[in-house]
Amino acid sequence: MKLLCNHPLVATALASVIVLGCAAEPPPPADVGAPKLILVIGDGMDDQQITIARNYLVGNGGRLTLDELPFRGAALPQTLDEDDPSRPVYVADSANTATAMATGVLTSQGRIATTAQTDRDLTTIMEMAQAAGIGTGVVTTSSVTDATVAAFMAHISQRFCQGPSDMESTPSLLQRSINCSADYKRNGGAGSISEQIAASALDIVLGGGTQYFEQVAEGEEELTVLELARRHGFHVVLDVDGLRAAPPGERMLGLFSPSTMPVAMRASGGGEAQRVEEHDGKVRVPAAFACEADPMFEGLPTLAEMTAVALDRFETDRGFMLVVESASIDKQSHARRPCGHIGELDQLDEAVAVALDYADAHPETLIVVTADHTHAAQIIAVSSELSGINRTSPGYVARVRTPEGGIMGINYATNTGSMELHTGAQVPVFASGMGADELPRFMTQADIFHIAAGHLGLATEHP
Amino acid sequence: MKLLCNHPLVATALASVIVLGCAAEPPPPADVGAPKLILVIGDGMDDQQITIARNYLVGNGGRLTLDELPFRGAALPQTLDEDDPSRPVYVADSANTATAMATGVLTSQGRIATTAQTDRDLTTIMEMAQAAGIGTGVVTTSSVTDATVAAFMAHISQRFCQGPSDMESTPSLLQRSINCSADYKRNGGAGSISEQIAASALDIVLGGGTQYFEQVAEGEEELTVLELARRHGFHVVLDVDGLRAAPPGERMLGLFSPSTMPVAMRASGGGEAQRVEEHDGKVRVPAAFACEADPMFEGLPTLAEMTAVALDRFETDRGFMLVVESASIDKQSHARRPCGHIGELDQLDEAVAVALDYADAHPETLIVVTADHTHAAQIIAVSSELSGINRTSPGYVARVRTPEGGIMGINYATNTGSMELHTGAQVPVFASGMGADELPRFMTQADIFHIAAGHLGLATEHP
Repeated sequence: MKLLCNHPLVATALASVIVLGCAAEPPPPADVGAPKLILVIGDGMDDQQITIARNYLVGNGGRLTLDELPFRGAALPQTLDEDDPSRPVYVADSANTATAMATGVLTSQGRIATTAQTDRDLTTIMEMAQAAGIGTGVVTTSSVTDATVAAFMAHISQRFCQGPSDMESTPSLLQRSINCSADYKRNGGAGSISEQIAASALDIVLGGGTQYFEQVAEGEEELTVLELARRHGFHVVLDVDGLRAAPPGERMLGLFSPSTMPVAMRASGGGEAQRVEEHDGKVRVPAAFACEADPMFEGLPTLAEMTAVALDRFETDRGFMLVVESASIDKQSHARRPCGHIGELDQLDEAVAVALDYADAHPETLIVVTADHTHAAQIIAVSSELSGINRTSPGYVARVRTPEGGIMGINYATNTGSMELHTGAQVPVFASGMGADELPRFMTQADIFHIAAGHLGLATEHP
Repeated sequence: MKLLCNHPLVATALASVIVLGCAAEPPPPADVGAPKLILVIGDGMDDQQITIARNYLVGNGGRLTLDELPFRGAALPQTLDEDDPSRPVYVADSANTATAMATGVLTSQGRIATTAQTDRDLTTIMEMAQAAGIGTGVVTTSSVTDATVAAFMAHISQRFCQGPSDMESTPSLLQRSINCSADYKRNGGAGSISEQIAASALDIVLGGGTQYFEQVAEGEEELTVLELARRHGFHVVLDVDGLRAAPPGERMLGLFSPSTMPVAMRASGGGEAQRVEEHDGKVRVPAAFACEADPMFEGLPTLAEMTAVALDRFETDRGFMLVVESASIDKQSHARRPCGHIGELDQLDEAVAVALDYADAHPETLIVVTADHTHAAQIIAVSSELSGINRTSPGYVARVRTPEGGIMGINYATNTGSMELHTGAQVPVFASGMGADELPRFMTQADIFHIAAGHLGLATEHP
């Protein structure tokens, strides 16, 4: 009973009985504005990635901002088979997982807000928000045309159709053909992802990807997609000074690099994950390395700064949904670069701190932080001793020297090809702010759509 | 305000204002008994393992009992360097993690409730509970002398010193020497782990490990450790019939197999994880297999049955702490046997259901479910197509045919030796029952000791 009486919710309720009576339904207090939602996505950010980053950034006994969030749960990525959508596939990509979060509908790998096999466009939560007069924005360290944020803004059969020149191609990395010809405007489609963003009603779009906006728009002689965006009312900025100087009140498209933005950290001394070889019963383990700031990152806006600018530009009486993505946790894990993914998780953590500060001042804000899928990297013991149990990883291994004086072994062993693969486990969910306590502890990624829609007061139909 | 007035906590509080007034502190309701704690440990049970098991057991859209628990958080395993305990090691074993949960103190790998380097005995929560007149028990699918449960019952420098004959040896698997000679009784120690259990004040000890109790006890001519246990007041049972027929009111030691108990499931048709070979640009992927009941498991008590028997034997007015371990999630992942670890996670899930039923009838019960460390297995895509990105795992791969008609690829690629290795990420924590809502969302494993001690009303000093 003591607990109950001391509970802040109860104290508030008791006060309300005295002041207002419980039968009445008083208007919301004047300082609670229209509902606001910040969805932060760490691409490939699983518990291995979080622990790797924590060990390096704040030490094994330290705490990330993420660790302080008052809600924690798990979300299950779900993927359909393109050839037989009645069957599940147990590993996801960023396109189908973002589609689930953006639309509440499951689809197959590579699809951007379109249905598996039948290729129907799925209404996104941002389109619903725009129709309801609610602000919308995305901020990413990837190209703004990349899958995770694209699924909130565009509809296309294939994630790689990022610009008008990419609609039919055979990227060397994939060694398979891309064909988005059904999405050409001349065929009744909405065009490539960059063209759809240029024509969208988004208020704020910040990230990389100038190369997809410098292409000539479909059906035009010389008009680039960037020019198209300007004609559709976007104030365009192309560097951090432009970002900081942008006049308030205009819709803004900020592009700060040709494709994915350079990352914040790299291995010092050229250290990399290496295949470990056994010879004559001995193992030569790779040299340990520390991390350092990546000079390529200099002069670029951080994810935290882009997030702060975006939050600052929304009108607080209107409500908004902002998606913030740290994209290169995934990309640097694909590339077996531990310092790279540590630095990008740090960027996410700092962006979460910005979001928390915003929510402190605007209690009508719900912050949800999650990942789209799990990834390859694993913390393992790396030893040069060969015993009956401990030999060596068959894959690539890095040994990272942490500031607290430890050596952290990181294993990348999902693929013998040039890139590591995604893995298929459930992902962490963190939340803070209004309604965070009521979220289900276990959810699917499609549930995140319904949580967002519920918070923003958008009516949805279950698919 | 509507939300506040409808909130069940507020409704209860409002009722309390009317009935009791808020200044009074009424005694707890008569039906709330002495505090009870059930700590369920899935050895090696990380989010990959949980997702693998869910996909197989209930399908990608299904729910495990675990998924329904109302609290979810994460716990960080922490390990010290034996040679320099001021330095962290980033991968744990079951001995040091269980020591953290049992004593609140960090130690180095392999140690059972003793300090790193200095080898001092650490008081366990079960010893504290016994001193306070609270019941104590352990239930495991491993040998009862194995590290996870041993750290709650014994103190010794090395986990492998399970019986009196094991105190000085060189296990072939380890290829390094074990030396627990300082723990011989003749040297002032408490003897091997089985001897310490035989002499312990535990109320219930159930699992495998007869081989460690059939050895002659140190300093005896013919007396086995099992006989020693009887002399210390344990009613000994050696099969499931004995378990079911055990008279109430006696302390009980139940041993159902020579060492680790056989597991519930195996691959049908002799399927196993295999190394995948590339030849001439093609990959031969291993044949897919389903899982089936393992006939070796027939006639053994399930983890759920052992848990139910244990809960039934505790006097409800006395309070108790029961540790329940599903040990072979870890052991089957070490051995690259997906059906094995799926079946053992199923055993854990069923034991959690038994615990939840108990807590429904005894609301003074707190249930905490967690893991000791993460493990090697990862869900990956397995394809016979070699493209620029997708080649093949460098490790061992299994393709499991799920009942819902999917193929789940599982990768084991931490070690080229005979066993996979632990990995070093934070582990999931689930909780239900009294106080579950107040647990921190992020904790260390040492915090679990303090949570348990707090629930049981045991005074602790921070180390």
